[in-house]
Amino acid sequence: MPSPPNLDNLGLATALAKARKSYHEGGVPIGAALVYHSGDTPVVLGCAHNQRIQKSSPTLHAEIAALEDAGRQKAAVYRHSTMYTTLSPCIMCTGAILLYKIPRVVIGENVNWVGGEDLLKKHGVEVVVLDDPECKTLMKRYIEEKPEDWNEDIGE
Amino acid sequence: MPSPPNLDNLGLATALAKARKSYHEGGVPIGAALVYHSGDTPVVLGCAHNQRIQKSSPTLHAEIAALEDAGRQKAAVYRHSTMYTTLSPCIMCTGAILLYKIPRVVIGENVNWVGGEDLLKKHGVEVVVLDDPECKTLMKRYIEEKPEDWNEDIGE
Repeated sequence: MPSPPNLDNLGLATALAKARKSYHEGGVPIGAALVYHSGDTPVVLGCAHNQRIQKSSPTLHAEIAALEDAGRQKAAVYRHSTMYTTLSPCIMCTGAILLYKIPRVVIGENVNWVGGEDLLKKHGVEVVVLDDPECKTLMKRYIEEKPEDWNEDIGE
Repeated sequence: MPSPPNLDNLGLATALAKARKSYHEGGVPIGAALVYHSGDTPVVLGCAHNQRIQKSSPTLHAEIAALEDAGRQKAAVYRHSTMYTTLSPCIMCTGAILLYKIPRVVIGENVNWVGGEDLLKKHGVEVVVLDDPECKTLMKRYIEEKPEDWNEDIGE
């Protein structure tokens, strides 16, 4: 019998699917998914990609957009959820994760950019970095192709 | 000749007008304004109120909504801007201010709640607290009237 699929890989795959979609739309290829873990079946509450280009938005980074996609939730829901994101979260998204006390963040890669991981850990958040090859390749290509849009997205 | 109006009081008045509007709509009464300072005439790039109730949004706190209202801006614009907000900014909004390296934050009050002011200061952001009576009264009334909505807004 094949072993069950790894839940973190499934969560990241959901985020990565959104990142790929954004890339093909000419947008920043970062995706995120907020997954609620209760009982045996995880539930994807929200998933989204960065919307800087598509919605001309300076605040809808992937993680913020995933929280927005999930809609209003009670504190107890966030506290049993994991945020999956294809790239190390910036300080704004780090702050959103801390605001809602999301206890676990799974990151596709932090080679092309490192955000607020230290602040997350300082506040007791579990941070897992999967070092995913496709996340790294996709982000590297985008930064090379559209450095101005990328710099704008990180406030540079 | 009357003395010219204080610019910080004018900025806060813009944010407070949005907070009042939100209160009258049954929403969280926090407002914010992003003001660009270049030359003699400050420009309000964006102003908004918290949208938890009105748009069922978990991420459109007043400061995030003001940044969104301002739309995509170059880094140099943020670096000559001030964020005005009626209440001490939460850790998510603090992160957004740090992401865009906004150098100055003017806060209506931090009696009813204190957010990420220490983190702002640690990163060199100038933080001014005006201790405004109307900001305090409005927020206190709301917290007493709608404690569940307020707790949800701060992830409690």
